[in-house]
Amino acid sequence: MKIIITSGGTSEPIDSVRKITNNSSGKLGSIIAEKLCEIDNIEKIYYVCSKNAVMPENKKVEIKFVSSVDSLLETLKNLIQSEKIDYVIHSMAVSDYKVHYVTTDQILSEKLQNLTPTKILEELDSQSLKLTSDKKISSNMDNLIIRLIKTPKVISQIKLWDKNTKLIGFKLLVDVSENELINVAYNLLEKNNCDYVLANDLTKINAIEHNALLIDKEKNVIKLKTKNEIAQKIFEIVKGDKI
Amino acid sequence: MKIIITSGGTSEPIDSVRKITNNSSGKLGSIIAEKLCEIDNIEKIYYVCSKNAVMPENKKVEIKFVSSVDSLLETLKNLIQSEKIDYVIHSMAVSDYKVHYVTTDQILSEKLQNLTPTKILEELDSQSLKLTSDKKISSNMDNLIIRLIKTPKVISQIKLWDKNTKLIGFKLLVDVSENELINVAYNLLEKNNCDYVLANDLTKINAIEHNALLIDKEKNVIKLKTKNEIAQKIFEIVKGDKI
Repeated sequence: MKIIITSGGTSEPIDSVRKITNNSSGKLGSIIAEKLCEIDNIEKIYYVCSKNAVMPENKKVEIKFVSSVDSLLETLKNLIQSEKIDYVIHSMAVSDYKVHYVTTDQILSEKLQNLTPTKILEELDSQSLKLTSDKKISSNMDNLIIRLIKTPKVISQIKLWDKNTKLIGFKLLVDVSENELINVAYNLLEKNNCDYVLANDLTKINAIEHNALLIDKEKNVIKLKTKNEIAQKIFEIVKGDKI
Repeated sequence: MKIIITSGGTSEPIDSVRKITNNSSGKLGSIIAEKLCEIDNIEKIYYVCSKNAVMPENKKVEIKFVSSVDSLLETLKNLIQSEKIDYVIHSMAVSDYKVHYVTTDQILSEKLQNLTPTKILEELDSQSLKLTSDKKISSNMDNLIIRLIKTPKVISQIKLWDKNTKLIGFKLLVDVSENELINVAYNLLEKNNCDYVLANDLTKINAIEHNALLIDKEKNVIKLKTKNEIAQKIFEIVKGDKI
């Protein structure tokens, strides 16, 4: 068996120095990888992660570094289209947005003056408001405005590249009810043809606990309380058990 | 002697999950810290850094974690005002901007329609355009707009807290001439009452080389080629040498 685990967080450049990223440490992905290495017939785990992610140490693990969503997409596509991958465990926190352009209040006020809402939307969506510098943006300006656009949905591509790969998606929400968590997770599962989704709530994660729900296609749900319990359950599923 | 070394990069939250940060690894700060530990009469080095920074290991070093510019400012103020600090080596990449609010094209187009430039500037500067969510911003929007405002200049505060503390400032530019690098560094030195400024250019830093200029109040300049050379020169200066 060959497995891909994505872990850590992607980052999107603002300029040559600054970037937008997230707080994901890659700790959960690393614990899952180490647990799965115990399975005899696992030949290789590709651990696709950001440079600052926590990394597993095991000779079955091959680390593949990515930074932006585009580089993640390319790495996964190459792996899945060139080898038989049995499971993709997609725990990486993928940026939903990337930088379209950077501008300032002053440029906006000049270009958007006296326009109708429709014209304003057109201007904002074009590159006409972009600051000219592509290098490090000066720190001399009083304000900056960053316009973000959506990144491609990596999770939606996995089953299109190989319909036989099993897919475990991950969803992080903040301070929602258990019902909402289940509904959002199930929608993610259906939309992207996942086999399982691990759903968690930031307010229920701390140094000791990592409360999460694992949901399958039949909407069976199991509650897990720690990173080790999550890794153990995924270990069982990869070995062939059900929820 | 007691020394503060700031290292790594600050980060500014966008919401409870996302943040703006920079690519600083803290490697240079860590090498400087380890070199300075060799000086006999150095009693303590406070290493003020981000959680993901490279960290020195030495019993003279005490790590102090910071994240945002505000937390860096508070940590430095407390240290400098409560103890005699002989040197502040301020190598941390400090965010020049922090998030004022997050909004969308749609909100802008409604609120800014048919306004004069002056009114647009007023609206942009107010919080009236802010999206209501303070938690994790939904990934369902087609676009996002982040308005940034300037952070306080940490480097300008050091000598105000203790005029007898020696201060080494750092400046990173991207792809500029040596003359421009010297001029920008000297301006930083004068403006913030630094004793020295280490100026470097991102395009002249790679895995092996770390080209930099160290400049003093008399505008003497010395060229350095690697992180070890930089650490060696700062070691000599802290021991009492001049450039």
